Amino acid sequence: MLSEAIANELRAIVGSNWFLDSPEDLATYSYDGFLPEYKPDGIIIPENREEIAAIMGLANKEKINIIPRGAGTNICGSSVARQGGIIMAFHRMNRILEIDRENMCAVVQPGVVNADLQREAARFRLMYPPDPASMFVSTIGGNVALNAGGPRGVKYGVTRDYLLGLEVVLPTGEVIRTGGKSLKSVTGYDLTRLMCGSEGTLGIITEIILKLVPLPTSKATLQAIFLDVDHAAKTVSAIMASGIVPTTLELIDKVILDVISDYGGASFPKDAEALLLIEVDGEEVLVKAQGERIEEFCKERGAIEVQRARNAEEAEMLWQARRTAFGAVARLRPNILVEDATVPVKRLPDMIRVIMDLAEKYGLRIGVLAHAGDGNLHPLIMTDLRDEEEMARIDKALDELFEAAIGMGGTLSGEHGVGIAKDRFIDMEYSEKAIEIMRGIKRVFDPNNILNPGSFL
Amino acid sequence: MLSEAIANELRAIVGSNWFLDSPEDLATYSYDGFLPEYKPDGIIIPENREEIAAIMGLANKEKINIIPRGAGTNICGSSVARQGGIIMAFHRMNRILEIDRENMCAVVQPGVVNADLQREAARFRLMYPPDPASMFVSTIGGNVALNAGGPRGVKYGVTRDYLLGLEVVLPTGEVIRTGGKSLKSVTGYDLTRLMCGSEGTLGIITEIILKLVPLPTSKATLQAIFLDVDHAAKTVSAIMASGIVPTTLELIDKVILDVISDYGGASFPKDAEALLLIEVDGEEVLVKAQGERIEEFCKERGAIEVQRARNAEEAEMLWQARRTAFGAVARLRPNILVEDATVPVKRLPDMIRVIMDLAEKYGLRIGVLAHAGDGNLHPLIMTDLRDEEEMARIDKALDELFEAAIGMGGTLSGEHGVGIAKDRFIDMEYSEKAIEIMRGIKRVFDPNNILNPGSFL
Repeated sequence: MLSEAIANELRAIVGSNWFLDSPEDLATYSYDGFLPEYKPDGIIIPENREEIAAIMGLANKEKINIIPRGAGTNICGSSVARQGGIIMAFHRMNRILEIDRENMCAVVQPGVVNADLQREAARFRLMYPPDPASMFVSTIGGNVALNAGGPRGVKYGVTRDYLLGLEVVLPTGEVIRTGGKSLKSVTGYDLTRLMCGSEGTLGIITEIILKLVPLPTSKATLQAIFLDVDHAAKTVSAIMASGIVPTTLELIDKVILDVISDYGGASFPKDAEALLLIEVDGEEVLVKAQGERIEEFCKERGAIEVQRARNAEEAEMLWQARRTAFGAVARLRPNILVEDATVPVKRLPDMIRVIMDLAEKYGLRIGVLAHAGDGNLHPLIMTDLRDEEEMARIDKALDELFEAAIGMGGTLSGEHGVGIAKDRFIDMEYSEKAIEIMRGIKRVFDPNNILNPGSFL
Repeated sequence: MLSEAIANELRAIVGSNWFLDSPEDLATYSYDGFLPEYKPDGIIIPENREEIAAIMGLANKEKINIIPRGAGTNICGSSVARQGGIIMAFHRMNRILEIDRENMCAVVQPGVVNADLQREAARFRLMYPPDPASMFVSTIGGNVALNAGGPRGVKYGVTRDYLLGLEVVLPTGEVIRTGGKSLKSVTGYDLTRLMCGSEGTLGIITEIILKLVPLPTSKATLQAIFLDVDHAAKTVSAIMASGIVPTTLELIDKVILDVISDYGGASFPKDAEALLLIEVDGEEVLVKAQGERIEEFCKERGAIEVQRARNAEEAEMLWQARRTAFGAVARLRPNILVEDATVPVKRLPDMIRVIMDLAEKYGLRIGVLAHAGDGNLHPLIMTDLRDEEEMARIDKALDELFEAAIGMGGTLSGEHGVGIAKDRFIDMEYSEKAIEIMRGIKRVFDPNNILNPGSFL
């Protein structure tokens, strides 16, 4: 609990409107996209770097936990006050400071919503590639802190690949800048990328320089349906091996196809076992040729139905199934756990089989969405948090799931983060010594362990 | 100086053939691609991780400096024993362990020569994009430690962008693994990229997993000559703004063109002020169209001559000028200092003018090669290290050069590293606090400061 004196000091820094501690506010900020709830001691909403530096100076002196939070869409619990403390929110710092057409970069504040940046960049015929599913609400600051990915990752990579520079307020209240507008820099240790994916544990990001790329002038969107999930997985391998680099290469499994059909979002053949949603982008002449080749790949490998969108509306319709998947699944049970195990691309069919087997073994209903092109699977586990017996079975299944992923040379998390969701699994992937190094780095940045201390370390 | 007892312990670890301390060997390993010489106390050439772990365990206990060295091609002095110690060389660890066609990645030992990996990957129709000028001798371990770039960086990025995972022996002798074959991973702090560009100060890299990309099936190579360097720079901007992402976009200035002409490597119009060497790669249909558009851009912006290669031999001839540049310049004076200041792309013409002005102001002969597409300039300063008066003028010019680059939002080093060449400039780019954080990270990895301690921190 915060003393009234400290609450007043915080109010003095940001103005009394921007420090919240009513029961309603505390409840609102007690959870994020992951499930567990932890009531914070307050919420502070700074306007600029100077206020943040003052807040951190005070917090560091008084040993008050600060938990930075963008839009709270992360699904690993990296923005909740597990050990108490104050949530710092960024919706007042939501300005796009500059789109620099000639240098092809953007300078933004952390609270800018991803889709707003996409829209603004497009006005300059530029694109910011990372497109997490949360992009219409999630913020760039949160995207950087979690190193967000998205369907376009197959071709364009993830947030890290577009990060040129940062301004950061350290837990001690000091401000540092890393990187800059240059496309290349090797001066000193790569603090820019160390911050990326650090889940708000090393510093508060107050300004972000992002690389942009030319907006593709054309794209082709295809949907292919398979009776056998292995045929779909082989098609994924064939496309990836062909030299074509698709923009997106998404897979939806039978469980989810059936749910979408029941939901009325779209209708698929009853015996369909997998759907691939494939997009290529670039210059028109190339996109057309690649679209045709991909259609052939699908047919040669047993697709019973291939649709190629003839225009933007048809493309949008093909995306419909993927977009409604989550909502359709959410209808069935009170909660969904979205997992994020990722494996080397060629192990994708093996991993899908593992998930199907675990569902059967533990009597669970699990559907699979996958960014198949980069081996990033999202098993959706349908459950009810209140059902302790089922949750115990899920825990066992997760243990086996992660063991299998790591055993295949994969990782606990491709793009969602560790947070409080997977901290108990991290020693499957990293040795005690590697974790000790990470803890040491944490201490260098945050000697009093006040910044998001409940998170993964 | 090493005691004979410790030398014997080291011999016992690697075998007496692989610990060198003859005067000839010490002289051979006393310098790298940068200029100053520091005689090491010995050279050790381990065969595997276990030997390296044993060496580091001993070195850590006895506080013996270890300086890892690939092919020693770096030009920032990051592989010399400035504070004494033992050079660790990797030419016995030069195996390509695996090219994984389906996952499009390679697993290599640190001593693998870059060009050997390129060649092997090409057999699988894959490409490893980073192509430092040193690629025919420099090693992947060194490339990772320095985060090497190269002409293809405009389109393909640098070493960091292809790094999936590492095995590292820490200065304390413990072994950690980071990352893996998965294309995406956000588990824990990004130790993989923290190692990249750390210039051998954080750990010894013993295994490297690299992402590969499909080998482009076609390319177009163009050379354009301009009477005004500003016209060349504007052409660079126009190409970059057009949506075309060239593979390489190199600029050679008048000073170097004249030297090449005198050298007999190729001949250029007497009043030519700049040459652009431009390459695009990808699928044939696209490459052809882009080649034609680039030719138009050049002509519209005042190129007096544009050549487009009709075949591989002609392309090779066009590269000839760029390839002979360094050799031609090296003939003129005993030493060349290659600088590496990098600026946001649109400041390229400003930076070229700054360099021309500094050459005049300080009575120096400086030519400019630039990876123009990413703002990475390589001023070649022709000098004689023994001429103290001239070296003093160069020092002053460098101060102004770096100040100008940083003032334009640029960086000290785009791709060559800091090492002992630029450590005195690092506080121009990073605040005292940022450097303190870097020092703190160094202590976490290397509490006894034994790994390349003479380098940039």
